[in-house]
Amino acid sequence: MDEQKRARRPGGRSARVRAAVHQAVTELVGERGYGNFTIGDIAARAGVADTSLYRRWGNLQALLSDVLLARLNTQAPMPDTGNLADDLRTFAANVVREVTGPDGLALVRLAVALSGEGQQGLQARDELLADRARQMQVLLDRARDRGEDPPDALEVLDHLLAPIYIRVLFGAGPLTPDYLDRLVDRLLA
Amino acid sequence: MDEQKRARRPGGRSARVRAAVHQAVTELVGERGYGNFTIGDIAARAGVADTSLYRRWGNLQALLSDVLLARLNTQAPMPDTGNLADDLRTFAANVVREVTGPDGLALVRLAVALSGEGQQGLQARDELLADRARQMQVLLDRARDRGEDPPDALEVLDHLLAPIYIRVLFGAGPLTPDYLDRLVDRLLA
Repeated sequence: MDEQKRARRPGGRSARVRAAVHQAVTELVGERGYGNFTIGDIAARAGVADTSLYRRWGNLQALLSDVLLARLNTQAPMPDTGNLADDLRTFAANVVREVTGPDGLALVRLAVALSGEGQQGLQARDELLADRARQMQVLLDRARDRGEDPPDALEVLDHLLAPIYIRVLFGAGPLTPDYLDRLVDRLLA
Repeated sequence: MDEQKRARRPGGRSARVRAAVHQAVTELVGERGYGNFTIGDIAARAGVADTSLYRRWGNLQALLSDVLLARLNTQAPMPDTGNLADDLRTFAANVVREVTGPDGLALVRLAVALSGEGQQGLQARDELLADRARQMQVLLDRARDRGEDPPDALEVLDHLLAPIYIRVLFGAGPLTPDYLDRLVDRLLA
């Protein structure tokens, strides 16, 4: 069975390795924090050869970003409710649940760690964020197609995501549904 | 000479120790990053006894916060131009200079580090941020006294500081004077 065929079988060995690696990264981040473990540590914990991790992901930074992206896409997926305000409110509520949960602020922590790790770190960070921005753009494009007048993706980052992240990081101010409503209203005003 | 008297003499031994300690912390943060050095490392680098650092600051978290607060107050002081829009524009420009400089994002990096260090870390973070918030409140109160209609300090955090921090942290979008003007206009609208 060649590599390509393996990759296509979701229940196959490839998917099992991926799940084991993701689980190992989540545990190591929780126990040691970003920056305090290697690809070798991940391989040992997941019970796979580190050469296969290098072959699949290339470097630690790309692997960490892939794990976080998969988790964000599961835990804070882009909603499709049929109108922009509800999409943004649902998205904001998902983000708040993610950043106030047990692995809270993973995106901020990973971005801080990657931005100190040279070119590979910055590239991994940029690809992760570009993927999420593309998904947000799909949500905004759907709104435009319905005849709504959406903000651009950077405005969503500036005035919806940034306040949530910084309030959690600085322990400043509440993150109530009422507050999220006001952020969305202000963004769409 | 008692402790109180020493503290009052800006050119005295107390001030020299403080300057040496601040310099040592700045170097260690640059070389190793937050979380990777101890009070003992700072004392050795500054050429003072670690007991005197514990006596003066109590713990590492309080010492780190004190160093960063002193630097922010020097490099991004609260302006007093005579009108609110100019105060906020000047403040934003100072913050951008600080976060894009050689020790960039120090506040975000320290907040990430402190929030993983238990109760002492959270307390040090909260005191640092409360001090900056009090200074911002003075700026906003002056505007109200002049008959202007200022936002509250949390709104300044949400819609002026947070977008700047997150754009730098995520490497997303420019931080031009024109962009800062739009943030201030939007905040005051």
